[in-house]
Amino acid sequence: MSASDPAKKWFRCSDRERAAFEAGIKMGSIYHQYVGAPVNESNVEALERAIEAGALVQPFVEDVRVRIERTKIRSKRGAPYKYWSVTGEMLDVWIRVRYDDVVAEAVMQYVPDLRYPLMRIVELREA
Amino acid sequence: MSASDPAKKWFRCSDRERAAFEAGIKMGSIYHQYVGAPVNESNVEALERAIEAGALVQPFVEDVRVRIERTKIRSKRGAPYKYWSVTGEMLDVWIRVRYDDVVAEAVMQYVPDLRYPLMRIVELREA
Amino acid sequence: MSASDPAKKWFRCSDRERAAFEAGIKMGSIYHQYVGAPVNESNVEALERAIEAGALVQPFVEDVRVRIERTKIRSKRGAPYKYWSVTGEMLDVWIRVRYDDVVAEAVMQYVPDLRYPLMRIVELREA
Amino acid sequence: MSASDPAKKWFRCSDRERAAFEAGIKMGSIYHQYVGAPVNESNVEALERAIEAGALVQPFVEDVRVRIERTKIRSKRGAPYKYWSVTGEMLDVWIRVRYDDVVAEAVMQYVPDLRYPLMRIVELREA
Repeated sequence: MSASDPAKKWFRCSDRERAAFEAGIKMGSIYHQYVGAPVNESNVEALERAIEAGALVQPFVEDVRVRIERTKIRSKRGAPYKYWSVTGEMLDVWIRVRYDDVVAEAVMQYVPDLRYPLMRIVELREA
Repeated sequence: MSASDPAKKWFRCSDRERAAFEAGIKMGSIYHQYVGAPVNESNVEALERAIEAGALVQPFVEDVRVRIERTKIRSKRGAPYKYWSVTGEMLDVWIRVRYDDVVAEAVMQYVPDLRYPLMRIVELREA
Repeated sequence: MSASDPAKKWFRCSDRERAAFEAGIKMGSIYHQYVGAPVNESNVEALERAIEAGALVQPFVEDVRVRIERTKIRSKRGAPYKYWSVTGEMLDVWIRVRYDDVVAEAVMQYVPDLRYPLMRIVELREA
Repeated sequence: MSASDPAKKWFRCSDRERAAFEAGIKMGSIYHQYVGAPVNESNVEALERAIEAGALVQPFVEDVRVRIERTKIRSKRGAPYKYWSVTGEMLDVWIRVRYDDVVAEAVMQYVPDLRYPLMRIVELREA
């Protein structure tokens, strides 16, 4: 499929670098599209599945897992205000992108040491 | 449930006006949270259901229907770029909010005459 | 200006309720559009001004003030990851909407008691 | 600065691939953060500057230019609804990311042939 990428001619990089770039796009997309969405126990699964399904329509995405950290959306007091907005701290994402023969796997995970939801490449290989 | 709104004391308006305000918040929320999300035929239902489930966790929402206009997400040529970003023109939303004894129904729908995705109150009543 | 609202015929509510609805839309819009945006001391003013300028192009907005709480974006250790994403807890917004002869003022402010960024109407009057 | 990246140990890729990944993140971030924002001639510059300032606080960004296509936000009839929501079609972005000795330049630009706002690497070099 990616063999016939009609945009390939406009890129100045290797297939490995392209795979890394595409993985980065998807990480930035997920974060900035869904941070802020209302969430509690009742809709968290629908939201996780929708984020995954959305990632799968984007170019070169082969697989994806999204998990919103349950411990961070536990019940609040004070109905009717008992829900949260999605934050980067809650998001746990794994994605696999394939560009031609290159597979990139990336994750997004909160790193307490950095106080930062780090997006990183965990594997990049010819496949 | 809304009878025990712990925030009521901070508002300077009637229950009818409050219901209208709450309906407006939800319309603005849906639009600005989900516009931009990737969508095509394969994920449109998951996205519609997630938007609905998200609205239902927000305060005073009793019911909601979200429809993304299928004619506006028809297949494109040119895999792997065959998907769309959600726009206001695609969104068809109906929501019912209850604040105490007042029910507000609002809709968001593209109005070709205005070239605008109009959010409006279609009913506001004591119930 | 609002006297000639071409959409008025599609609403089933009073001018006061319409003003409340419009104020709600703007609050939901600001929250869900800008939560997630990267921010630290160096860009916070540009972001505040852009949020204000964006609100002013929306229908019936007469005035708006946006403040991102400086104490919540203080320097982190650990360059290059020294910035934050905007959250509802950081946002302090005041807006004035006019619909014909009705003025609605609304604010968004974090309420520690509720652990919630409450949007509320603080004044609604014939003007 | 990037020489002291405290997260480097968690990556499984070269500096070139890292630079490509980081450029991708920023492109995805800009798109999904700001698509949907209200815009017309009166606020377009404030928004462009805010998007640029926001990108510059993100890791490894050295320079950025954001342009919202003026021909796509020309006046509409029908005050008070005379504004647009930012779309990917409007966005023209150039960014330069540096990771250690590697510089990646990427652009986002609408490609009419693909009907797609393509994000791509236009240069990747040791510097």
